[in-house]
Amino acid sequence: MKIACLPGDGIGPEIMAEALRVLAALELPVEVVHGDVGGAAYHRHGHPLPPETLALAQGADALLFGAVGDPTCDNLERHLRPEQAILGLRSALGLFANLRPAKMFAGLEDLSALRPEVAGAIDLLIIRELNGDVYFGEKAIRRLDDGRRQGFDLMSYAEDEVRRIAHVGFRAAQGRSGKLCSVDKANVLETSQLWRDVVIEVAAEYPDVALTHMYVDNAAMQLVRDPGQFDVIVTGNLFGDILSDQASMCVGSIGLLASAALGERQMAHGTLGLFEPIHGSAPDIAGTGRANPMAMILSLAMLLRHALGQEDAATRIEAAVAVTLADGIKGGDLGGTAGTVAIGDAVLARL
Amino acid sequence: MKIACLPGDGIGPEIMAEALRVLAALELPVEVVHGDVGGAAYHRHGHPLPPETLALAQGADALLFGAVGDPTCDNLERHLRPEQAILGLRSALGLFANLRPAKMFAGLEDLSALRPEVAGAIDLLIIRELNGDVYFGEKAIRRLDDGRRQGFDLMSYAEDEVRRIAHVGFRAAQGRSGKLCSVDKANVLETSQLWRDVVIEVAAEYPDVALTHMYVDNAAMQLVRDPGQFDVIVTGNLFGDILSDQASMCVGSIGLLASAALGERQMAHGTLGLFEPIHGSAPDIAGTGRANPMAMILSLAMLLRHALGQEDAATRIEAAVAVTLADGIKGGDLGGTAGTVAIGDAVLARL
Ligand SMILES: CC(C)[C@H](C(=O)O)[C@@H](O)C(=O)O
Ligand SMILES: CC(C)[C@H](C(=O)O)[C@@H](O)C(=O)O
Repeated sequence: MKIACLPGDGIGPEIMAEALRVLAALELPVEVVHGDVGGAAYHRHGHPLPPETLALAQGADALLFGAVGDPTCDNLERHLRPEQAILGLRSALGLFANLRPAKMFAGLEDLSALRPEVAGAIDLLIIRELNGDVYFGEKAIRRLDDGRRQGFDLMSYAEDEVRRIAHVGFRAAQGRSGKLCSVDKANVLETSQLWRDVVIEVAAEYPDVALTHMYVDNAAMQLVRDPGQFDVIVTGNLFGDILSDQASMCVGSIGLLASAALGERQMAHGTLGLFEPIHGSAPDIAGTGRANPMAMILSLAMLLRHALGQEDAATRIEAAVAVTLADGIKGGDLGGTAGTVAIGDAVLARL
Repeated sequence: MKIACLPGDGIGPEIMAEALRVLAALELPVEVVHGDVGGAAYHRHGHPLPPETLALAQGADALLFGAVGDPTCDNLERHLRPEQAILGLRSALGLFANLRPAKMFAGLEDLSALRPEVAGAIDLLIIRELNGDVYFGEKAIRRLDDGRRQGFDLMSYAEDEVRRIAHVGFRAAQGRSGKLCSVDKANVLETSQLWRDVVIEVAAEYPDVALTHMYVDNAAMQLVRDPGQFDVIVTGNLFGDILSDQASMCVGSIGLLASAALGERQMAHGTLGLFEPIHGSAPDIAGTGRANPMAMILSLAMLLRHALGQEDAATRIEAAVAVTLADGIKGGDLGGTAGTVAIGDAVLARL
């Protein structure tokens, strides 16, 4: 089994180092290979996703990804910016299903801006489509005939793209409480109308799942008013980007949340997937030793479970993190004072 | 001065009746005309925005709008659905600037799902562009060459569309705390990149305003984490739809929030604009006499201030509503028991 490790920018390398210490301690029969992505790759190779990194990723069984985002790249052309690394990997590897669980950690309700009784009820999974929508359509800034500049991006979904992510949603709902909420903007967008039509067609294969539909503006309201009402949400790339970040912040501890991006290969054989913390590269604290590596370590657990089938190892890591938190060892983002390496040490000691 | 009154669907007519009682009590020299919109108009005239309603609106100095949305129209073709009435009015009348203030009402912090100290700090204004973006681009469900269905919608902004809404944002910021946050997704969308470029160009004319930029996913997080950090936000039609609803819900009392949609005519001469509550048509409680008319009454106040220049009358209405609330007279949505007419009576008594 081969894990490609892509630390990226900002705090990426620091938190990745801790996750790799945890992996080493588990003594699993895995090979780890390393690649450059993001701003770090741009500075070294002139491209945020160099061909050698893509080849490395394609040859691996799973990807452990840190974070990309580098302010020194802000003025580069779009195709050279760090974000293109993650978009390029999702697209080139066909990682179309983003699983973003958001669950309140018991005892951490105080970190949420929501009232404890509202925040405490959060236990949801957002399934975001990652390979289509306005992210990957034709796009440009062009001159109109009268000389005005116009920016445009084509939003679209084809029925097969909707169908495969709908199946992921329904299957996830079967494994949880049997409730699936599909989020769209079908009162305005034809892309959403097709989305809704196809989700309804797929629902016929899952009579045991209760399907509901919600407009995205209402979903953004309901995630504030009563996030506990949701179990599994399935939605497109753009709405999923917004709602999953909102849901994460409702939990209040984005330094603890991990995510998975899975492709057909993963679905079929339990192999390919990309695992990353939901937080960003935090350039403001990079190099200070203050980054919380827990979301990165929990991303490793998710990788071991979903991509390598190592349920035991995943559970051990998650338990070690939970005990570390229960022992009051927390990063600055959680109101604590422990640094990156100290948290890594603490998790290792409890493994 | 002529006000066109468009009550629409669901609770629209009931809450409109209370607003009109308030207007009558003020004895202003205004003429009120009435028109059908939404599902109500569809059922009576076969179209959600019949030509006679559009003509009525075009001939008025301001529009007082209730709400549209009617479940019995769910299966109609898109162009016949109730929502087309509001989209059609915005577009036909050039109402490109949506002002959506969200401010915590003192003493109502308990209604928000956010902690009181977080919610209490909310005092922001979202300025949403209303005439462009993916709302009004080419859109359809088509068959691809291989027979698959595809839904598509073209997202776009031209530089003049961005420029005029940017000016609205900067001027609003000048009238408040001098801070403007422009929200986009420039790391992925070319439409957003042009948006950002143009907002930066316009900023040169407003050296007294501090401009910042935020990605929409981060904005959705920050509106949960610390909404008090925002003063004026300017954004496009789609992101504005989502974020303004989210912000309203952060306040917790959407039965109290009003909004304005303004066009060039309004900007230049203080005349044309559409004023409406931010809540919907609430078909589930329509006809029960339980709808809270306060947002509708406050929409009238906004109309009197922004469209008719009647600052005194606007202030009187707002004060009467505030005193009614302070006296504990609240609708079911605010945890009270007062019905539609009782609330109207109470506001009138305090006018
Ligand atoms: C960095 C950016 C392109 C990316 C996205 O919008 O998908 C990020 O926000 C995410 O959610 O992973
Ligand atoms: C009804 C719908 C078309 C409309 C919109 O999306 O603009 C509504 O959500 C709003 O915000 O006024």
